[in-house]
Amino acid sequence: MSEQKSPALKYHELHRGKLQVTPIMDLQTKEDLNLAYTPGVAEPCLEIVKDKALAYNYTLKGRVVAIVTDGSAVLGLGNISALPALPVMEGKAALLYKFSGIEAFPICLDTQDPDKIIETVINIAPTFGAIMLEDISAPNCVRIERELQDKLDIPVFHDDQHGTAIVVSAAMLNVARLTKKHLDELKVVVSGTGAAGSNVIRMLNLLGIKSVYAYNIHGVVNRKDYDKYDFVVKELLDANYISDPEGNINSLEDLMKGKDVFIGLSAPNLLNEKMVKGMNPNPIIFALANPIPEIMPQLARKAGATIIGTGRSDYPNQINNVLVFPGLMKGALQAKAKSITLEMKLAAAYCLADLIKDKELSPEYILPSVFDERVCDSIAAACYKAATKKPSRKKA
Amino acid sequence: MSEQKSPALKYHELHRGKLQVTPIMDLQTKEDLNLAYTPGVAEPCLEIVKDKALAYNYTLKGRVVAIVTDGSAVLGLGNISALPALPVMEGKAALLYKFSGIEAFPICLDTQDPDKIIETVINIAPTFGAIMLEDISAPNCVRIERELQDKLDIPVFHDDQHGTAIVVSAAMLNVARLTKKHLDELKVVVSGTGAAGSNVIRMLNLLGIKSVYAYNIHGVVNRKDYDKYDFVVKELLDANYISDPEGNINSLEDLMKGKDVFIGLSAPNLLNEKMVKGMNPNPIIFALANPIPEIMPQLARKAGATIIGTGRSDYPNQINNVLVFPGLMKGALQAKAKSITLEMKLAAAYCLADLIKDKELSPEYILPSVFDERVCDSIAAACYKAATKKPSRKKA
Repeated sequence: MSEQKSPALKYHELHRGKLQVTPIMDLQTKEDLNLAYTPGVAEPCLEIVKDKALAYNYTLKGRVVAIVTDGSAVLGLGNISALPALPVMEGKAALLYKFSGIEAFPICLDTQDPDKIIETVINIAPTFGAIMLEDISAPNCVRIERELQDKLDIPVFHDDQHGTAIVVSAAMLNVARLTKKHLDELKVVVSGTGAAGSNVIRMLNLLGIKSVYAYNIHGVVNRKDYDKYDFVVKELLDANYISDPEGNINSLEDLMKGKDVFIGLSAPNLLNEKMVKGMNPNPIIFALANPIPEIMPQLARKAGATIIGTGRSDYPNQINNVLVFPGLMKGALQAKAKSITLEMKLAAAYCLADLIKDKELSPEYILPSVFDERVCDSIAAACYKAATKKPSRKKA
Repeated sequence: MSEQKSPALKYHELHRGKLQVTPIMDLQTKEDLNLAYTPGVAEPCLEIVKDKALAYNYTLKGRVVAIVTDGSAVLGLGNISALPALPVMEGKAALLYKFSGIEAFPICLDTQDPDKIIETVINIAPTFGAIMLEDISAPNCVRIERELQDKLDIPVFHDDQHGTAIVVSAAMLNVARLTKKHLDELKVVVSGTGAAGSNVIRMLNLLGIKSVYAYNIHGVVNRKDYDKYDFVVKELLDANYISDPEGNINSLEDLMKGKDVFIGLSAPNLLNEKMVKGMNPNPIIFALANPIPEIMPQLARKAGATIIGTGRSDYPNQINNVLVFPGLMKGALQAKAKSITLEMKLAAAYCLADLIKDKELSPEYILPSVFDERVCDSIAAACYKAATKKPSRKKA
């Protein structure tokens, strides 16, 4: 039996999972016990009664974030429920620690009711320095994140929503730098308006891109179909963050005509060569569906694409959230931030883009590698600065 | 500033708390990441979708328990709320690990509403192999534990209720052995009917002690005052687990006359010499209020007590929950038990008592030391056996 197991199953079986929770100090003597437990432990308790902020000094709160899922939208696996999602959450915690030294504990919720998720997370929040939501389906994830951030005084961050949006934003900043175009000249099509797509659309607008078109399960997004959409897409239309297509356009192929950039956060093999060929000259393709992108890089290149990014590690320009969330969490915890602000997200995007110097920048190198050791601490510093800066009147 | 801090505060500040959550394996290479996270992680997820029990093989679930508090009855500190209780919960987790190797993560709940506590713990349960409730005030703790154990398929254990009761039971077994008395001859007074006291009363009855009298904040417990009591005391009266005092007895002093054993889980300095002198010859005193017992051992001895126990480490016969919960949790997790049964608790009590051989047994040595290395694994084995034994018709 055991010999037939795959390497991944053996890896997970070896230590029964991937995370361990252990005392930092050895408890050898009675004196150790007197300090770590009764009677010594009463002192930090009473200090925290006097000033809750001291929990950051005397407990793990300042070091540990919760990684919370309801198992409704797990990686490529879909709605597999809470317990089967635990290996992914342990893995995410392990990644966070590897890249940032920030610790995380997985919480898999036995409910997919947004109100119950919100109440449960509020109830368990005192232990944690921040909440990372993970693999919760859209549009519930948007409401859950907003209400939690509204009600809690610690950062709440849904990586699926913002992580990709920040990395794509950094990529677009460097696309503009490389092609010497202004962001407001670029016409962009975003395919997918779920957790990631909707926030990509939002951030591209905030960066100054004025023409962002969207495509989703209902087809080309446009104002006349307003009632078809979930509240997230409606908000984007209300804010004019999604441009209405000119004329009577119904297909993705027609939508892509005359556009400069395609960003896919949708489904494998959605694009064909013809669609890419219909774009403006030197089209830019970010095909981020994982593991099978909207169009394979070699096909996109054959159709004329000059800058190509995917979510995969085996092609250049990997758009991977791990470039952002470790540094963002580290900076937020160091700043004892009470929320993840737009300023912090934008700071992360600009910082990530700026890590590549002008002379290094090329169509195959618009983002740092996930193994680039400068990334986490640079982003942490940028986010720390953004989190601790006195508010100014300027709108970011 | 820092120089003036006490050793306990410095100890807690050094690493910012006492627990760490870290990856077990180094994630060095891309291959490591492929196994620990995507794409490899999908395999254990899908295995657990097929069979939830495999979470015990592929995740931390089988290794980690939650230590859950609402901060309502913390050690000697009382109702200090969730966050200030975190140092105690980290300490309890550290103790559990030190004595058993079982890992634990603290969850401090920002609610003291029993229904919300129950719902929250149910919602977060998938991550954990067992739930240890901690420092939740009575009588809520009783209802919370029962409903959770009823609704969850993992062990739920409130140490404050059962830990002390199991250790006191072991002590009473050895008192009977040492004094060559039958348990059903002993007349016992229990002072305090909260979380610990009520369960001491219950377990003493289950051990075969027939005369258990109780004293609490309302005075001597008796049937005619039934309506005064909380539901826990009412249940004990309904089950005839609390004996009605003979005649019209209203004071603790009168209640103790003619009794053999006093067990205090109540308040410092409640007893005086005269009360002890009024007991039967060679009285036995377990004065477990902490840190100041119901009567100091030297005073009890002066008044004639022959066997004396306290909760303190600086006197013989320390009645300390740490003798039980590590082994009980270890055995329960090893057995993948779905609940903590009465059989497991009784097995723990008998096992703990039996660790002291006849020739070793003395008035100053009726329980093993908390540092006795045999204790955890012996109790774990006894509980494992009790948990995995086929149910018989015999009532334990």
